[in-house]
Amino acid sequence: MPAVSEETVRVDLGPRAYDVVVGAGVLDSLGERLTALGFRDRCGVVTSDRVAQLYRTPVERALRLAGFTPLVVEVPDGEASKTVATLGRVWDALLAAGIERGTPLVALGGGVIGDVAGFAAATLLRGIPVVQVPTTLLAQVDAAIGGKTAIDHPAGKNLIGAFHQPRLVLADVGVLATLPRRELVAGLAEVVKYGVIGDAALFARIERDPDALLTGDPTTLVPVVAACARQKAAVVAADEREERGERAVLNFGHTVGHAVEAATAYGRYLHGEAVAIGMVAAARVSRAIGCCDDATVERIRKIVGRLGLPGEIPADVARERLVAAMRADKKSAGGRIRFVAVETVGRVRLVPLTGQEIVEHLSDATSRRS
Amino acid sequence: MPAVSEETVRVDLGPRAYDVVVGAGVLDSLGERLTALGFRDRCGVVTSDRVAQLYRTPVERALRLAGFTPLVVEVPDGEASKTVATLGRVWDALLAAGIERGTPLVALGGGVIGDVAGFAAATLLRGIPVVQVPTTLLAQVDAAIGGKTAIDHPAGKNLIGAFHQPRLVLADVGVLATLPRRELVAGLAEVVKYGVIGDAALFARIERDPDALLTGDPTTLVPVVAACARQKAAVVAADEREERGERAVLNFGHTVGHAVEAATAYGRYLHGEAVAIGMVAAARVSRAIGCCDDATVERIRKIVGRLGLPGEIPADVARERLVAAMRADKKSAGGRIRFVAVETVGRVRLVPLTGQEIVEHLSDATSRRS
Repeated sequence: MPAVSEETVRVDLGPRAYDVVVGAGVLDSLGERLTALGFRDRCGVVTSDRVAQLYRTPVERALRLAGFTPLVVEVPDGEASKTVATLGRVWDALLAAGIERGTPLVALGGGVIGDVAGFAAATLLRGIPVVQVPTTLLAQVDAAIGGKTAIDHPAGKNLIGAFHQPRLVLADVGVLATLPRRELVAGLAEVVKYGVIGDAALFARIERDPDALLTGDPTTLVPVVAACARQKAAVVAADEREERGERAVLNFGHTVGHAVEAATAYGRYLHGEAVAIGMVAAARVSRAIGCCDDATVERIRKIVGRLGLPGEIPADVARERLVAAMRADKKSAGGRIRFVAVETVGRVRLVPLTGQEIVEHLSDATSRRS
Repeated sequence: MPAVSEETVRVDLGPRAYDVVVGAGVLDSLGERLTALGFRDRCGVVTSDRVAQLYRTPVERALRLAGFTPLVVEVPDGEASKTVATLGRVWDALLAAGIERGTPLVALGGGVIGDVAGFAAATLLRGIPVVQVPTTLLAQVDAAIGGKTAIDHPAGKNLIGAFHQPRLVLADVGVLATLPRRELVAGLAEVVKYGVIGDAALFARIERDPDALLTGDPTTLVPVVAACARQKAAVVAADEREERGERAVLNFGHTVGHAVEAATAYGRYLHGEAVAIGMVAAARVSRAIGCCDDATVERIRKIVGRLGLPGEIPADVARERLVAAMRADKKSAGGRIRFVAVETVGRVRLVPLTGQEIVEHLSDATSRRS
């Protein structure tokens, strides 16, 4: 493998600051990096059965070479795993192994694993260190950075959780080669999002050559993933717990995206695909409220299409269901959603809107378009 | 009721700073105080069935008078309630009521309620505000301050939890009048502890007139509870998450105390009673390692006795069981416990000891004594 430069992004959170290391083949350095953070002896690893088949052996080897005794807990893959039962399995295994407050827990997997392992780490012994090793593009550019952890509740997704910042995020773009193409593409939706909310150059780079990203080439992916991580890090540093609204810009495309996911029972779209639909919808709403021009809507719609992502809310999803789903969104404050509207590619602002208003603006925009 | 002065102690934790208000009859002001903190509309209340019988009505009235819509969740009393199942009941009830991130949750009860409700608040929507309204002396001087929340796990007590600072602690010494005398006495063990670890004047005050405390008179209790709260607040402010050792001094008497609780299956002693036994034991170990003199051991032993608290490890508790329990203590680091040794009343220091060493020193001290 040719040498690919490694990029390090600092998440500046004072006493909770940490690095996001983006590179190709960096998984092999996991043990040394844990040692550099002052950890030793035992190390927990939570991973999914699917990821374990591919990376359990190299990760255990990397840990043992650095002198660690890894304790690996495999949990089933998929959103259905984000339950108290899965959490209990992780608690049981680590407590049975006699972990202490300084024992690190490695979350090796996609967003589900990062959420569950992160929440387990947040709650074991009132908090043990967690190291995020994201293995999907989506997790590398988004979920693994920022300390959001959660499990689901019958009342909704991610309703039970904690903010628990990792001590390190190790994003190896090399592992994306084994990612199903559909998941890689879905992850690119979040990359587009970063372009829209604050990095016009990143957006232009995707526009120039979307195929370079679709091939999964490390030389292309390292700087792109690092650019996303840099933005996520800045937003997280400015608003660690989503209290001041800065972090809310990350929800661009997510208000409608989440509603589409909920309205299709989380079975039809990958998260990134729903976000792609949500971004096009958000652009149209932004246009309808006079926040951006038609050209901006068109740029977003076009790049979504060129990446092979869906951009339209399916006709069989009733608008009332979207409104109901938005009403249940835990980010609402006093019934209004802080909707992320685009002004131009690279700049967004928050507009308080109800779910009803969003859907009405969307219908206006859509009917005008047709 | 005669007017009793109210004392406010600030827990100085920067952005997470909050007040501990100690007074008589202050429960009636709960609603206004929540309003002063910026809360409005809905308000969750978690309480035990036993506390609800006494205080549910006045608390609901105080909340409604200030314009709140209280949602009360009653859970069974006792340590057996510190489970995922109880947590789930609180989650379910509050999520069904459609709480938002700004909805405060009031923990109305003793340590168990504070732990469970605090942990529920720590994990609902990744953290909602919690207000601690402790109704036992033990909770007022200790558990309600500092943000430690937890549930139990088959592997041990308090192994699953979080640090989640309250927004306010409202300690009404008036409610202690309805506390069973045995619980009041058990709470006094923690008061003695504060004297030993950092407040010689408080210790001397208890020595001068222990009966004044045993009567539960508000005029006596307000300054005493406030003195304890002040010390706890200082320790918490210096070491919020027990990372730097400052907070470890609060464990004076707790290493052996916890071991005695574990060795008697948590069924024989109240926590404060076990701490009283642990404090006498800790004083003897301190003497054995040359940390304090015989007179200090005697002062501690004597005050424990005068308050009607137990001071001796029961003969039927095997020393090996204590060692095993200390080995399982989650506060151990690399097998060694940061044992809190007394130098003189009002001053302690940390000494790294293994459970085996502690028990051996204890046997030496005990055999020399007899």
